[in-house]
Amino acid sequence: MSLEKQPLVSFETLSGMVEGCAFHRWMGITLREHGHGRVILDLPWRDEFAGDPSDDHMHGGLLATLIDLAADYAIATVHGIGVPTIDLHVDYHRIALPGPLWVEGSVVRVGRTLGTAEAKVYNKDGALIASGRGLFLTAIKPDVPPRSGP
Amino acid sequence: MSLEKQPLVSFETLSGMVEGCAFHRWMGITLREHGHGRVILDLPWRDEFAGDPSDDHMHGGLLATLIDLAADYAIATVHGIGVPTIDLHVDYHRIALPGPLWVEGSVVRVGRTLGTAEAKVYNKDGALIASGRGLFLTAIKPDVPPRSGP
Amino acid sequence: MSLEKQPLVSFETLSGMVEGCAFHRWMGITLREHGHGRVILDLPWRDEFAGDPSDDHMHGGLLATLIDLAADYAIATVHGIGVPTIDLHVDYHRIALPGPLWVEGSVVRVGRTLGTAEAKVYNKDGALIASGRGLFLTAIKPDVPPRSGP
Amino acid sequence: MSLEKQPLVSFETLSGMVEGCAFHRWMGITLREHGHGRVILDLPWRDEFAGDPSDDHMHGGLLATLIDLAADYAIATVHGIGVPTIDLHVDYHRIALPGPLWVEGSVVRVGRTLGTAEAKVYNKDGALIASGRGLFLTAIKPDVPPRSGP
Repeated sequence: MSLEKQPLVSFETLSGMVEGCAFHRWMGITLREHGHGRVILDLPWRDEFAGDPSDDHMHGGLLATLIDLAADYAIATVHGIGVPTIDLHVDYHRIALPGPLWVEGSVVRVGRTLGTAEAKVYNKDGALIASGRGLFLTAIKPDVPPRSGP
Repeated sequence: MSLEKQPLVSFETLSGMVEGCAFHRWMGITLREHGHGRVILDLPWRDEFAGDPSDDHMHGGLLATLIDLAADYAIATVHGIGVPTIDLHVDYHRIALPGPLWVEGSVVRVGRTLGTAEAKVYNKDGALIASGRGLFLTAIKPDVPPRSGP
Repeated sequence: MSLEKQPLVSFETLSGMVEGCAFHRWMGITLREHGHGRVILDLPWRDEFAGDPSDDHMHGGLLATLIDLAADYAIATVHGIGVPTIDLHVDYHRIALPGPLWVEGSVVRVGRTLGTAEAKVYNKDGALIASGRGLFLTAIKPDVPPRSGP
Repeated sequence: MSLEKQPLVSFETLSGMVEGCAFHRWMGITLREHGHGRVILDLPWRDEFAGDPSDDHMHGGLLATLIDLAADYAIATVHGIGVPTIDLHVDYHRIALPGPLWVEGSVVRVGRTLGTAEAKVYNKDGALIASGRGLFLTAIKPDVPPRSGP
């Protein structure tokens, strides 16, 4: 038996949370893996993601979306539910050319009222595209006791 | 003749920049008005914007997109072209229920290398939904001298 | 009688809050004026402020301090007391050479749980040195009803 | 011989940079250790650090200072010199009661023009007090080729 802490939500529950969101379904985001305090999600390319007519790199608002959601679901793995974003900070490191991306979210700290998590977006070559962090309202509690892991 | 400074891009040019972006066309963003250092843009609602299955409020990533683009186009009015976003900070004040939003962007400072602009997102009742600021790379210059106004 | 909203704290009370803080006394910060949702404070130069041995400009941490405290006291004028900072974002626009600075803070939004305010630091020539915003915990309430103005 | 990358500045050089700054000397900051892309620094307590008359916890501006300087010196270890801060984001997790603190800075990405680094401040019990990230102007290059390690 592993001594590693288990996530408070199962893969199926968290995956359902990701895909239960209309904007995530439109984007095509899927959960790849999760642990206690961390998640990895995948994003395929769609032509509507392009942010610039001169070249086709991804709009920065979509990279901000990836930072937001990955940070939020990282918190969900230790808090039991997704929580409202209070604020978001995103650093753009490289342009994201057309192609799949993935994002890793990890918890910095979850308190009773507030939680902070960070996230990094990579392209398929492993280059860091964007990174950032979000602040979340963890004062909103799960209605029912969250699952204690699979 | 007005002594007020004129924007360096015409309404038609700036409007073409807004709608030349595939993600903006998908969102349905349109330019409402612009001046020297400021812009206002409108966003209608689409069902794909919903960020939460339990209620239908707008995904925070789309609000971040509005902050990013309004701040960027505010800079374009004094710099002549849109510029890459370096980083972005967004504060979420209220949830955005289904319905139209508008965003106002305004320049804080534009230097030779870097520019800062801020933006505020409002709903149709005038309630402040989100606000924030972005940092932009103004070291990238227009290829041709920008228009000196209409 | 003015229809303008009055600050919830008097000049004397707010000035006492500013100078009741040991670090503010060391810095030499003083309140210049205040209104409902806004404050202006002054900072003289001290040699210990220098951040760089090669030239003598002010350390960025002290500019962050000015953004933090001016945003916080702007909130105090509508909330009745100073409140804990949750997070802080600072943009550095120009170096601050030795000499007096002043900072203006203004409220963006104050809600029941959270409040956002922004601030701008200027030198004596009126050049914008730094700007930014802070998020504050307004869930902490005054113990006694705040004064309803002078 | 270690395959690990060596920092571009020696401990003595970096320590001299830290203590060459008047504000750092006043604060009492000292370098504890450094590697390629990371630094740890120590801060003792002084009574002038107190931010609040009601209790004596450290002013948030000083915590922002620690985030700024640790992120900056983390970049210095791979860039060869300290660089100007462009912007700074700080999350406050817990109040810092009187007592020593330490801060760890680590590089997120250093590019030709811009660099991002993050930092975390801990108290002597190892509790996370504050965390954040800064953006730095790495377009400013060392005058002479930096040392290739000790």
